[in-house]
Amino acid sequence: MSGVQTTGAQGTGAQSTGTESTGTHAAVAQAAAPRPVAHPRLSLNQATIKYANLAEAIDATVNAGYESIGLWREPVQAAGLGRSIRLVEDSGLRVSSLCRGGFFTMEEGLARRESIDDNRRAIAEARALGAPALVLVAGGLPAGSRDLVGARSRVRDAIAELADDAAAAGVTLTIEPLHPMYASDRAVVSTLGQALDIAEEFPLGVVGAVVDTFHVWWDPRLLEQIARAGDRIASYQVCDWATPLPADVLLGRHYPGDGVIDFAGITAAVEAAGYRGDVEVEIFNQQIWDTPYATVAARTRDSFAEVVAPHLS
Amino acid sequence: MSGVQTTGAQGTGAQSTGTESTGTHAAVAQAAAPRPVAHPRLSLNQATIKYANLAEAIDATVNAGYESIGLWREPVQAAGLGRSIRLVEDSGLRVSSLCRGGFFTMEEGLARRESIDDNRRAIAEARALGAPALVLVAGGLPAGSRDLVGARSRVRDAIAELADDAAAAGVTLTIEPLHPMYASDRAVVSTLGQALDIAEEFPLGVVGAVVDTFHVWWDPRLLEQIARAGDRIASYQVCDWATPLPADVLLGRHYPGDGVIDFAGITAAVEAAGYRGDVEVEIFNQQIWDTPYATVAARTRDSFAEVVAPHLS
Repeated sequence: MSGVQTTGAQGTGAQSTGTESTGTHAAVAQAAAPRPVAHPRLSLNQATIKYANLAEAIDATVNAGYESIGLWREPVQAAGLGRSIRLVEDSGLRVSSLCRGGFFTMEEGLARRESIDDNRRAIAEARALGAPALVLVAGGLPAGSRDLVGARSRVRDAIAELADDAAAAGVTLTIEPLHPMYASDRAVVSTLGQALDIAEEFPLGVVGAVVDTFHVWWDPRLLEQIARAGDRIASYQVCDWATPLPADVLLGRHYPGDGVIDFAGITAAVEAAGYRGDVEVEIFNQQIWDTPYATVAARTRDSFAEVVAPHLS
Repeated sequence: MSGVQTTGAQGTGAQSTGTESTGTHAAVAQAAAPRPVAHPRLSLNQATIKYANLAEAIDATVNAGYESIGLWREPVQAAGLGRSIRLVEDSGLRVSSLCRGGFFTMEEGLARRESIDDNRRAIAEARALGAPALVLVAGGLPAGSRDLVGARSRVRDAIAELADDAAAAGVTLTIEPLHPMYASDRAVVSTLGQALDIAEEFPLGVVGAVVDTFHVWWDPRLLEQIARAGDRIASYQVCDWATPLPADVLLGRHYPGDGVIDFAGITAAVEAAGYRGDVEVEIFNQQIWDTPYATVAARTRDSFAEVVAPHLS
């Protein structure tokens, strides 16, 4: 399949072929353009339009021509799980993943039991929403701790506790390595290799890994680890890296093409590894969050068509 | 050798033994205390007191009881190389390293030739100052480039051009892997493993690597790579990591012990690898830069004595 998609923006170009009126006002031309079509594997991760409630997020996603959306638990819970399921079903969208579970680096005790229980609920929610993947963020070092090795082993142990539930639900526990700049306070799993070391202890389909370009683009071992991952890749997320980083380093993500990441090479490697699932664009960026949802959905679709889609099969 | 050192601050405790006057004013007690003694392998990297000129930096280092200092090219050049050599000789300090060369990821052309030539001058300066190691920062992606692999290969090629000069000068080209958050704009060499992949192409003593705790503490392969490094470790630098990162992520470094880094484990691994050289404390931190040099030198000495020195042989 060609990665080149007809989009709203591209549709306006049709006016020069004589199929449209000669009106030159872009808004008029766009309103008259055919409904935009996003790449069929493109999914809009809801965090990219963070301030939208679930109904608004689904509307923006459908109206921009997507077939898939990545959901977050908080807006799902705000809408209520039952209503969320109906909204998704009525939209016709696939749910590419549910974000997020995890955060289980703490020592044994009440907080750890609560985290495990909450992750069990997240597995059930993912199943109910039809999401094949529950994205897991490992969690950072416990307060006052310097024991990375211990924290990492507790991540593995938590996943071992959850594996049977995930298998029964048909939901893949999908470990997301986060950029090393988050290793102390957010995720002690920093590389795809680490995520795979854990995942490979469990059956294929039960535990997998996310490849998120923002988090792993710098890794000199990335391509070999993607090849190693093969069918363990349970989610592919794309957004770009640019410097300088903003004051809040969580928010330094950009539309694909607006930074330095080699989407051609990474996407080709993910394809070669056999991944054929949806590809999410997940961007944390205050300026993008402050932009109208429809604009963001369109811009995401178009940047994806330009720099990612050409490298998908 | 015991890592516990007599320091100025500890010396003031002697008053309770009756060997000092009963004056309780700390400054008076400190003035009367014996001259502080830093751990014999501790070196104050000049960047920790960034605003000091070379003479001031040397004074602060000597007065705080250090035997070694890590120099930067800019203040050396500001003082003049000849005068810098005399200042160092008169001080009795060792020079643990010269920071920094590198920045050679650009394509062939004038800028690359200028960079290579400047690195040749840096090798000569290191030799003249008696610094065994010239610290190299790789450089980031060239503007507009997304080719990490190409940039990395150009780092290797530049080092190949410089290796004979370094060997002749008796200066080790010491590659510093920088934290992956600097991969795009500062250093495409992000892990100790990468640095060693390059270093091992050249003779031992000619090309080595820095282990800087701030940059590599998060790496799940760190301990195995330190063991692999062995005598390739040409510099060991310590400072701590804490979050949140400041708005300028270059400045998020802290005194050893003020963050989450496991200095016990990393220092023991560096020792086990055979490193017996000076250990630099290099801190980029605006608040520390705004503190009087003598205070910073003393605080650095004492934090090192507490959390790093006990793990040195």
